[in-house]
Amino acid sequence: MPLEVLEQAREDLPDWLGSGMSVMEISHRSKAFLAVAEAAEATLRELLGIGDDYAVLFLQGGATMQFALVPMNISSPGDAVDYLLTGSWSNKALKEAKLIREANVVADGADSNYTDVPDAGTWRCNPEAAYFHYTPNETIGGVEIHEPPNVGDVPIVADMSSTILSRPIDVSRFGVIYAGAQKNVGPAGLTIVIIRRDLLGKAPADLPNIMRYKAQADSGSMLNTPPTFAWYLAGLVFDWLKRKGGLEAMGQANRRKAELLYKVIDASNFYSNPVAKAYRSWMNVPFVLADSSLDADFLAKAEQSGLTNLKGHRSVGGMRASIYNAMPEEGIRALVEFMADFERTRA
Amino acid sequence: MPLEVLEQAREDLPDWLGSGMSVMEISHRSKAFLAVAEAAEATLRELLGIGDDYAVLFLQGGATMQFALVPMNISSPGDAVDYLLTGSWSNKALKEAKLIREANVVADGADSNYTDVPDAGTWRCNPEAAYFHYTPNETIGGVEIHEPPNVGDVPIVADMSSTILSRPIDVSRFGVIYAGAQKNVGPAGLTIVIIRRDLLGKAPADLPNIMRYKAQADSGSMLNTPPTFAWYLAGLVFDWLKRKGGLEAMGQANRRKAELLYKVIDASNFYSNPVAKAYRSWMNVPFVLADSSLDADFLAKAEQSGLTNLKGHRSVGGMRASIYNAMPEEGIRALVEFMADFERTRA
Repeated sequence: MPLEVLEQAREDLPDWLGSGMSVMEISHRSKAFLAVAEAAEATLRELLGIGDDYAVLFLQGGATMQFALVPMNISSPGDAVDYLLTGSWSNKALKEAKLIREANVVADGADSNYTDVPDAGTWRCNPEAAYFHYTPNETIGGVEIHEPPNVGDVPIVADMSSTILSRPIDVSRFGVIYAGAQKNVGPAGLTIVIIRRDLLGKAPADLPNIMRYKAQADSGSMLNTPPTFAWYLAGLVFDWLKRKGGLEAMGQANRRKAELLYKVIDASNFYSNPVAKAYRSWMNVPFVLADSSLDADFLAKAEQSGLTNLKGHRSVGGMRASIYNAMPEEGIRALVEFMADFERTRA
Repeated sequence: MPLEVLEQAREDLPDWLGSGMSVMEISHRSKAFLAVAEAAEATLRELLGIGDDYAVLFLQGGATMQFALVPMNISSPGDAVDYLLTGSWSNKALKEAKLIREANVVADGADSNYTDVPDAGTWRCNPEAAYFHYTPNETIGGVEIHEPPNVGDVPIVADMSSTILSRPIDVSRFGVIYAGAQKNVGPAGLTIVIIRRDLLGKAPADLPNIMRYKAQADSGSMLNTPPTFAWYLAGLVFDWLKRKGGLEAMGQANRRKAELLYKVIDASNFYSNPVAKAYRSWMNVPFVLADSSLDADFLAKAEQSGLTNLKGHRSVGGMRASIYNAMPEEGIRALVEFMADFERTRA
């Protein structure tokens, strides 16, 4: 999270706006909190250019809960649903969907070990599917699909947990966008769902109310007590993004950050990134050393230089730089300098 | 929340234990966070005397999500489930359960306008029920059932959102205890579920994994990213409770606080509380003025004296003092003094 946001949160604890209470303690139905909640939604709508034909929900449970709630809400028993597999997260989403509906795999990047996305010409889309689900950014493999795919009139559902707010997007291309907050939005424990209002009525009648997007939309995401502190922090992050110039500026900065890193990797025989160039992630840059016996030394020396959290996911090994919005360009410069130094001394 | 806890949280933001990060940012799989998570669970187990035959889960979604997850997890299609109705929250729990299973109302306090609990001799319990659900404390009506009921071998499920940690309880009497955190545990966005391990296997095979108590128990509540900051804060609250002498001391303090308030109400013809004495809540004390035209003036003058949040729930009107663990006895003394003063000048 941006340091400015944490400083503001610290300032507000434990006496928020002179209320004598922390924002964590104030009732979610109080005027003061409702103002926070509404301002956060308004700023998010402004940042992403979300039209009135979309509802914005502030929920709990993480993206993983949405893996289940999406098929439960926008399809009915007997419907088929489409999934594009590009890595670990899309496979997890499929696994939950299969417990709920007849889920069809449109294409699977497994043949490339998820370093590439199957060509759209080979996809087996079902034109009758209730929706098409994909994961624009896979955090573990570092695979990002930079433009929403063309799947005709089938509503597109996207798990944007690790890419939301990293650049401008055309929300009108999507039926549902969902995102766990802990990458680019705020703290863990908050989940954003942006849903085209015509899809709100698709849920079967026996779906529990608390799991029903429409019930959450109708109650302003306050069917029960929302995660108030996380919602407030998300609002601070949205304000910070606006001050930084919005998503156009953020997208340029993120592209610059990613290019800096890929350039150093590609110019070297010491480092490499396995992902097809058209699908390289701006958010998660995995890389390996030509000699993996140096991994432990690389990570230890990086940590000594203040460069933490560079270990690749246990399922793929190697290294991974997660360079979300809050990571400043100086952080990337420090990393590429360290990488060049390490290569010089150890190659 | 206790001021000491908020001060500690403030101290830890944005540089927690010298990590250069806030606890909100650190990975939930890091050693540092796992230590926080495990310590919180251990202290909660110690406070409540939870045996190893129970799993403790730290989840999201609030008690309202559990209204659905309880029938989904510990009963199967075709099972009947029993509900005791004592007010607004138990009715809400029943409403969700009815969408999922055949839910039987054991007894309904509606005849007394939820100011009394129907005599246990009149309850129509189903000895074959998958579970018996009740709400030990109803926040709106101020009705508390002080001892778990006797329902034979049927597992008891209790929504303890507003009473957990307010006094010692015998956990072994319960099949499932669940509680939204925002009353006595910590901030909104965290939900505690304490479940007897033999009940973990009851869920139907097609229940989504993220909704499955067993999957959460098997993964240490880390099937996906948990609400890390709320979990950390809950741990601080558990530590605070321990420093304060644990639940024995807390129960004595809460009883004293409630008795102070009921004594003033009962001694007066100006104030009254409608709840049958055996079922008066230690946590939520609703009261009305004999002349309700004075309500607005009472609330305004109370607020001027720093006594806030005294307005009764919109569904019942009047006044309500919510006197959770974090409310010190001095707060009650200030309230009863104000009430006596107000009565003297306006009666």
